[in-house]
Amino acid sequence: MSVEKTKILLIGSGGVGTIASYALEYAGKSEVTSVLRSDYNKVTEKGFSIDSCDYGQIDSFRPSHIAKSVEDSLRYGPFEYILVVTKSVPEVGSMVDVIAPAVSDNTAIVLIQNGIGIEGEVITKFPKNAVLSGVSMIGSSNIDSHINHEAPDSLKVGVFESNKAVKDVTQAVCKKFVEIYSNDKNSCVYDESVKFTRWRKLVYNATLNSVCAITGVDSGRLEVFGGTDSIIRKAMREVLAVAKSDGVELPEDVIDFMIRSDDPVYYAPSMLIDVHKGNLMEVEVISGNAVRIAEKNGVSAPYLTLLYELLKVIQKKTMEKKGLLTVPKERPVPK
Amino acid sequence: MSVEKTKILLIGSGGVGTIASYALEYAGKSEVTSVLRSDYNKVTEKGFSIDSCDYGQIDSFRPSHIAKSVEDSLRYGPFEYILVVTKSVPEVGSMVDVIAPAVSDNTAIVLIQNGIGIEGEVITKFPKNAVLSGVSMIGSSNIDSHINHEAPDSLKVGVFESNKAVKDVTQAVCKKFVEIYSNDKNSCVYDESVKFTRWRKLVYNATLNSVCAITGVDSGRLEVFGGTDSIIRKAMREVLAVAKSDGVELPEDVIDFMIRSDDPVYYAPSMLIDVHKGNLMEVEVISGNAVRIAEKNGVSAPYLTLLYELLKVIQKKTMEKKGLLTVPKERPVPK
Repeated sequence: MSVEKTKILLIGSGGVGTIASYALEYAGKSEVTSVLRSDYNKVTEKGFSIDSCDYGQIDSFRPSHIAKSVEDSLRYGPFEYILVVTKSVPEVGSMVDVIAPAVSDNTAIVLIQNGIGIEGEVITKFPKNAVLSGVSMIGSSNIDSHINHEAPDSLKVGVFESNKAVKDVTQAVCKKFVEIYSNDKNSCVYDESVKFTRWRKLVYNATLNSVCAITGVDSGRLEVFGGTDSIIRKAMREVLAVAKSDGVELPEDVIDFMIRSDDPVYYAPSMLIDVHKGNLMEVEVISGNAVRIAEKNGVSAPYLTLLYELLKVIQKKTMEKKGLLTVPKERPVPK
Repeated sequence: MSVEKTKILLIGSGGVGTIASYALEYAGKSEVTSVLRSDYNKVTEKGFSIDSCDYGQIDSFRPSHIAKSVEDSLRYGPFEYILVVTKSVPEVGSMVDVIAPAVSDNTAIVLIQNGIGIEGEVITKFPKNAVLSGVSMIGSSNIDSHINHEAPDSLKVGVFESNKAVKDVTQAVCKKFVEIYSNDKNSCVYDESVKFTRWRKLVYNATLNSVCAITGVDSGRLEVFGGTDSIIRKAMREVLAVAKSDGVELPEDVIDFMIRSDDPVYYAPSMLIDVHKGNLMEVEVISGNAVRIAEKNGVSAPYLTLLYELLKVIQKKTMEKKGLLTVPKERPVPK
């Protein structure tokens, strides 16, 4: 008896997304359709080249199907899972409308994305669908359809609390996803407390990642220059307080764990790389949502708040440079 | 009867210092000796060229004497006044030792420099000398010994409170300085409450100047991007609270005055220009001292504190680029 493979739609084939599609295909239980934009021609012709700490050297990898757009992908559906592995930059648009054509009643949506409170919009738009929370720990980049996968793929997947209406279903759907994603090279586990895991990752992203982006130095220099002790510890303590107000009690020692997590490398976190490349950063889902939760719950978080306000200004500067925003020719002045 | 001219030593002939030397020579009551380093040869040969909103176009200006160093200047002394018009960057050295050879019992030291609490070191080193506080409001730059003087020279001079031991003398010495500096083109007044004036200027420098440097945008864009309302007003209110704890009650409306002070220009403040040029900023005298006064007086100033900590990291990045600081080749990691 041949088992039919699970159909999966992948949105976002960067460093993380492409390794996800490889992991799924390698496990052999699913059939991945990947929506590609800038990489479409190159990958259709030559495939991705992959240099992976988990899978070794792969000269040419193509997922089962490649589509030019979500509309174009529908011929390979219907999809049981849609994996969203894009950067979240709500300032320039939402994923919700993009994926809508591919969402049917039985589609589960898996958000493998940074930040906290990222599920609200998806759950509002698709209230009857299972929406899963994926927190990825991986080091992987896509430069011109070459994937450089440096740190092992470790994925935790769980159920968003606010997705309770369909929770029983969701849990089963989640466990199935873990089953089809897992293989002998990677680590993928069902995470009972994925909210904890998400907040835990934010301890790094809302502080070290953000401050490196603002100051323009890597996490090693930040420490050598005194910023880790003067800024990061205080900001991390604020993240712990906000998480607590959101029902997640992180242990105090997560602070030193995160501060040491880049050892022994002068490591440039993702937002610093974004700044250097002139790309937009994931400001709103990382800092913005944390600050909004702090405000809602009456938690004092002046460092997180100011870092967020500074990041927003830098983000707008990037938007102006990218032509996504125009500043009036004459400076607006009150009458 | 010929009146002997007052001998003045000028340390720092940038945009502000050179206009000060011109103002003094133009008034005709003093004889300026200017210590030049990088500009020495050019100015000895051709003089400064000046384009001034106060004095018009001057093809070639040389102060009465030009010296290569303070030691070299001594043959034109003894000096009744030493004007220090340098940028204060204590991270790389202090002016105190530089001027020491030219300080005699009757020398008054006039600090025309940014920041708050800048007099401590000078008064400690020269406890018997008059030390004057000059707060300059001027727009003037020196590029390659060409002075572009755009906004009128307005100088307020007063007595540092901690210079009380010699206060009566100091006050007379101060009024004499105002007398010899004033001419029909500029504005120079004796300021009974120069500490107020210094704190007032800091309302701009510790906030707008600092945040523009950190975010890399001019003060106009900062406002268009929302940062003026979200960051600057809050930080300015902290400056007011710190000033109050230091005995200076600034009126609330100074906040809007400073926010509007660059209208209608997309203005790049000095620290932003420093960052763009890879120069060191006046972090310690502007932000550092304000934060230290806040701490000493138990005033909560989280925004000023974080801005200061961020500026320090950026300053160290610049120091590394300039070769003033070396980062270990391997990232230091605790055992």
